[in-house]
Amino acid sequence: MFQELLGVADLDAIHRTSMRLLESTGVNFPVEGALSFFKRHGIRVDGKRVYLAESQVMEALKTAPRSFTIRARNPQRSVVVGGGEPVFAPGYGAPFLVDPEAGKRLPTMEDYERLVKLAHVLPNQDMSGLVLVEPSDVPAESAHLRMLYTHMTCSDKPFIGSTSGQAGARQTMEMAGILFGAQVREEPVMICLVNSLTPLGYSVEMLGALLEYAGRRQPIIIAALAMAGSTAPVTLAGLLALQNAELLAGVVLTQLVSPGTPVVYGSTSTNIDMRTGALCIGSPELSEMIVAHAQLARFYGLPCRSGGALTDASYPDAQAGFESMMGLLTAVNSGVDFVLHSAGILSAYLAFSYEKFVLDDEMCGMVRRLRRGFEVTPETLAYDVAAKVGPGGNYLMEDHTLAHCRTAFWQPAVCDRGGLDAWMKGGREDAVVRARERWQRLLAGYREPELDGIIRRQLREYVGLP
Amino acid sequence: MFQELLGVADLDAIHRTSMRLLESTGVNFPVEGALSFFKRHGIRVDGKRVYLAESQVMEALKTAPRSFTIRARNPQRSVVVGGGEPVFAPGYGAPFLVDPEAGKRLPTMEDYERLVKLAHVLPNQDMSGLVLVEPSDVPAESAHLRMLYTHMTCSDKPFIGSTSGQAGARQTMEMAGILFGAQVREEPVMICLVNSLTPLGYSVEMLGALLEYAGRRQPIIIAALAMAGSTAPVTLAGLLALQNAELLAGVVLTQLVSPGTPVVYGSTSTNIDMRTGALCIGSPELSEMIVAHAQLARFYGLPCRSGGALTDASYPDAQAGFESMMGLLTAVNSGVDFVLHSAGILSAYLAFSYEKFVLDDEMCGMVRRLRRGFEVTPETLAYDVAAKVGPGGNYLMEDHTLAHCRTAFWQPAVCDRGGLDAWMKGGREDAVVRARERWQRLLAGYREPELDGIIRRQLREYVGLP
Repeated sequence: MFQELLGVADLDAIHRTSMRLLESTGVNFPVEGALSFFKRHGIRVDGKRVYLAESQVMEALKTAPRSFTIRARNPQRSVVVGGGEPVFAPGYGAPFLVDPEAGKRLPTMEDYERLVKLAHVLPNQDMSGLVLVEPSDVPAESAHLRMLYTHMTCSDKPFIGSTSGQAGARQTMEMAGILFGAQVREEPVMICLVNSLTPLGYSVEMLGALLEYAGRRQPIIIAALAMAGSTAPVTLAGLLALQNAELLAGVVLTQLVSPGTPVVYGSTSTNIDMRTGALCIGSPELSEMIVAHAQLARFYGLPCRSGGALTDASYPDAQAGFESMMGLLTAVNSGVDFVLHSAGILSAYLAFSYEKFVLDDEMCGMVRRLRRGFEVTPETLAYDVAAKVGPGGNYLMEDHTLAHCRTAFWQPAVCDRGGLDAWMKGGREDAVVRARERWQRLLAGYREPELDGIIRRQLREYVGLP
Repeated sequence: MFQELLGVADLDAIHRTSMRLLESTGVNFPVEGALSFFKRHGIRVDGKRVYLAESQVMEALKTAPRSFTIRARNPQRSVVVGGGEPVFAPGYGAPFLVDPEAGKRLPTMEDYERLVKLAHVLPNQDMSGLVLVEPSDVPAESAHLRMLYTHMTCSDKPFIGSTSGQAGARQTMEMAGILFGAQVREEPVMICLVNSLTPLGYSVEMLGALLEYAGRRQPIIIAALAMAGSTAPVTLAGLLALQNAELLAGVVLTQLVSPGTPVVYGSTSTNIDMRTGALCIGSPELSEMIVAHAQLARFYGLPCRSGGALTDASYPDAQAGFESMMGLLTAVNSGVDFVLHSAGILSAYLAFSYEKFVLDDEMCGMVRRLRRGFEVTPETLAYDVAAKVGPGGNYLMEDHTLAHCRTAFWQPAVCDRGGLDAWMKGGREDAVVRARERWQRLLAGYREPELDGIIRRQLREYVGLP
């Protein structure tokens, strides 16, 4: 049972508004290779503008799978998207780092590698991600190759493919070919993030990546970041109707290119602050959009993606904590299948933080535990022990307690439960200090997962490393 | 639609286990005045132990109202409990304060007055509460009188009555008689918190208060703080079955004393850390208990109370933020009617913080906004403006945007949306600094609500103030 905000009539009204927009206003696909797929299927194209009828949309949706598996090079790390459990992937695309000493600073490739290693060892990250930060000390045009190499060698969790245009996608596939061998042609070995260009369009770069990945039947997240009041209507229902139109047009394209291609219906849309124009990703509106977006995904029978631990704060403080928990818990309660930005993001996507990475990963564990709930069985109802202990007794030394005490409760890795006096005596450490100790300890204990030497050498050669 | 963890069969199994405990193990009521009510209604009593049959419980539940209004001395501030919207009340009972300079310190009566003034002006606190902290500079035996006086004069929001035994309850009613006049005999003018003594008992002090308030038909929260693994079974289903038995026994007593007395089914039960024995109020188990407890309340048709912004952290840091949001959002999503501890608590109830009070109140506004959702109407679906703007356009200057921009979005009072560069230039202030500025500004702008001079003088005389 999932959190909901919209009734059946609301969902239908949003759907019908989107269909009107698709039919009469259309969506821009400024790439001939994309337009030709639409034309070939009898869909109306005028210039770079594509106009879709409801029947054409619904027909294409029939072939999109409800769930699929992303294969990791370590098969035990493979993940199912759309299988009822959320997949957590780290923050994506931050140009800056925030650290407790320097504050804002530029990330390096060394940072990047450390963050991938952390993604590998953090217990609640299901994927190692991509573009955790944008490394400033490697050329922008080849940075994605270095990033991919790092994910492929420093982690055996599944990763995200590059969408640096058609070339980035092709290179990702070639590297995956080295890593996975023939498997790469048979099953999904990554997922990629194709962003729409709200309102009602796609960029040349993203379409290039979409065509490449769909042609190889690799999973694609089609995602909008619509901003209510700026790139979309100021009213949230209108934003949903608009982005639904552009998302569905992209979903249709994936199925025209290759029916059955796994595709995820994605959004991290939210409001702007009307006084400053600033994007707000810690707002209640962002969480409202998560709930509604997940409902629309179920309406269409598609797996869905949202953001997670998001905040407008520029430091991992209380605000960062409560905004991030609101988004993450809402995503999980809403039945979101793929949570991108489940850890690390600060300052409305502008920054990543090592400390927040660790803190958010802890949150991921907490919300997973909360969502799973507890068993009600004769053993857990514990009638016999309650009757035995009776009024005024204590359960601490009961056999029933001893039998369950190791597994009954969630255990924190970084949260402080030491109490007020220990906190005073310990120098009043806050969560940032504890998180810092944890990531440094995790990195110190990191061991690279085994990789065949020939594969490693081929990957190094491919990306131009000595 | 509320968040749920239990199925119908689970609820029934918990109910049946509780009924077995009530019938064969019983609950301790160590006060003759309470036992006589049970005896008078043909309920089996042995010593101080009361044994209830299912039919006796269900019969008593029939007269407990599903909702009721607590009258404030300013009628516009009156609140409905059980009316579909959560009532937020501040933290309750902390012996210490934590402030950014001193860390842990003892609260004074001056602190108490400032906190009540803040409770009065904070936009999302619906009640001013009671025992926000325990003031260290007034005698313990009369502290409740000073507290009540402060709530009655510094705020016109509804307050919580004292449960310092039968005397505290009687004094509360006498002071309320001065404040409300004859109204005090006709309708609820406060609510009080009666804690059970888990497992399966009540204290003499709490029973004294219960009898006094029920005799005057004032609302009573009957609440457990059962600790899984210590005062209750280590398995959460067993904890629920146990506390349900003791809570229902208390609820029955209220209805035997005076049928129709408003009574709230309450819990902030949770686990302990099995390594240290420490109470864990920031744990996912606490939130699981909130969801399940609210389901049981609906099962019995009773309004329900849980905790809210709870944390084990001793400072308003990221951990305090995310743990508090988890509890608060879960309470609201679960349909909890009365959220005690909706703001201010740190360190597993040991401390209160001015800064966290302000931060948590902001969270209350956010979760309220999120829960309310948004409208789907032709106007908000915004088809016309979306068709007009078309692909690639911008909505910022559209009439539709201008018409809605002032009301469309939630506005923060303390959250930072200034971005990374402004944060660097502004000296890297964190949420504690901003929260501190806010409460100092709120106090500076505080104006005492008007109160008749004669009433004020009578209240001063009653509590022994010059």
